[in-house]
Amino acid sequence: MSALNFLQPVTFGDCDPAGIVFYPNYFAWFDRTFHDWLRPYGGHATIVARMGAIGIGIMQVNARFHSPASDGDELNLSLSVEKWGGKTLHLSYEGRVGSRLVVSGNETRGLFMRGENGMFAAEMDGLRKVLDPNDS
Amino acid sequence: MSALNFLQPVTFGDCDPAGIVFYPNYFAWFDRTFHDWLRPYGGHATIVARMGAIGIGIMQVNARFHSPASDGDELNLSLSVEKWGGKTLHLSYEGRVGSRLVVSGNETRGLFMRGENGMFAAEMDGLRKVLDPNDS
Amino acid sequence: MSALNFLQPVTFGDCDPAGIVFYPNYFAWFDRTFHDWLRPYGGHATIVARMGAIGIGIMQVNARFHSPASDGDELNLSLSVEKWGGKTLHLSYEGRVGSRLVVSGNETRGLFMRGENGMFAAEMDGLRKVLDPNDS
Amino acid sequence: MSALNFLQPVTFGDCDPAGIVFYPNYFAWFDRTFHDWLRPYGGHATIVARMGAIGIGIMQVNARFHSPASDGDELNLSLSVEKWGGKTLHLSYEGRVGSRLVVSGNETRGLFMRGENGMFAAEMDGLRKVLDPNDS
Repeated sequence: MSALNFLQPVTFGDCDPAGIVFYPNYFAWFDRTFHDWLRPYGGHATIVARMGAIGIGIMQVNARFHSPASDGDELNLSLSVEKWGGKTLHLSYEGRVGSRLVVSGNETRGLFMRGENGMFAAEMDGLRKVLDPNDS
Repeated sequence: MSALNFLQPVTFGDCDPAGIVFYPNYFAWFDRTFHDWLRPYGGHATIVARMGAIGIGIMQVNARFHSPASDGDELNLSLSVEKWGGKTLHLSYEGRVGSRLVVSGNETRGLFMRGENGMFAAEMDGLRKVLDPNDS
Repeated sequence: MSALNFLQPVTFGDCDPAGIVFYPNYFAWFDRTFHDWLRPYGGHATIVARMGAIGIGIMQVNARFHSPASDGDELNLSLSVEKWGGKTLHLSYEGRVGSRLVVSGNETRGLFMRGENGMFAAEMDGLRKVLDPNDS
Repeated sequence: MSALNFLQPVTFGDCDPAGIVFYPNYFAWFDRTFHDWLRPYGGHATIVARMGAIGIGIMQVNARFHSPASDGDELNLSLSVEKWGGKTLHLSYEGRVGSRLVVSGNETRGLFMRGENGMFAAEMDGLRKVLDPNDS
């Protein structure tokens, strides 16, 4: 399964009045890691255009906050592909400062296309071949 | 159980290149609704100071994205108290544009205090009396 | 000249470890006020599509921060059209909490179109007729 | 005069429906670069505590947007100290993708302390000695 690491330096403006990372920022960093994963395959815009899709959008997400991070911390984020469903892609994320676990979470994403009756989640086969070519 | 509504007008800058709300913003709006709930009881800073705590922080969160929202939509967010645990507070959120469900989710929060061995999640009794005085 | 008001409630997550609004948020609120101004004329997407343009984008901005705002403040933002240039639109913004001045600033915006040699700032006449119909 | 560089990778979520960086993000990146500059001297929290101050806050800012940046661009940000005033610090920023100029701007910052009549901008001498020790 694919995996990717991204080092996110935490800064003052990422933090709230308690002096720790304002939690929605962790999801922006999950999403950044996801897009970094797409980069070597052409990036989101190119990939979805090739598929005739609108986007690889979010369906569900969850996260647990194990310990706080603050200004000056270097958050080491990793992405792993958990599972390819028929119309879903399951990703997991982990963020650590050194060996300390800060955040963990999961995203379920779909490949959204525009149909006659509005937007729908399409089959994942094509995308899977692009992103996980060595996966049987 | 307590409940509260907040109307969040969605704007251009909340949206991503696909033209729909960038998902971490939904969590910023959950958090905003949470703080609006605290307001009539003095607001977060006042409440946690009274408790000798650092903050009412996030432990876990999840969300499902049912349909997209975009520039010009009025997102009607509601917060409900699901359950008070011994050291946890369970909240649920729902966001609708008109009758259409856009987002739903849950937060687990703790009352964090500083102890001899670092930060810990304290008993919820005191906070519960402040925020849910009519709840037995 | 046109003018518009928007009430932005300041929340915990808008604030930094000093407990005051993290300054880039003021620009997000300027931009939100700008898009609210466009709303009765169809909104940004509709207006720029009608003009064959990509967007009414930012060219220059400045702001002065007169006093801080924090969680629980109600920031009353106002937008005024300062001047229509040939290829520029000059807007000014003011944000107050009660009578106290918090922020003031100016934006210069252009109507961006795609040409043979890339993006360019187009003439403002068409946009001016839409947004300032009573202005001679 | 001091100078510092920071490489900000632009991602999908930094961009708006026009597919280009939503402009308030540039200020978040200015601010990030500023805090990176403080880092080797102990970081913002440590420095202001040593001075008995609340923060090195923003008084004025401006920016010009020369060309757009989008998902996948690597924005090379640089900070320069322009001038130390009696109660002000003048910084300039430049952001480039390769050799292409994307954004340039200036910040005026003050060292804010709490006095008998509220917050005030203090003398800069102490901070200057910390941050620009070799500057006469």
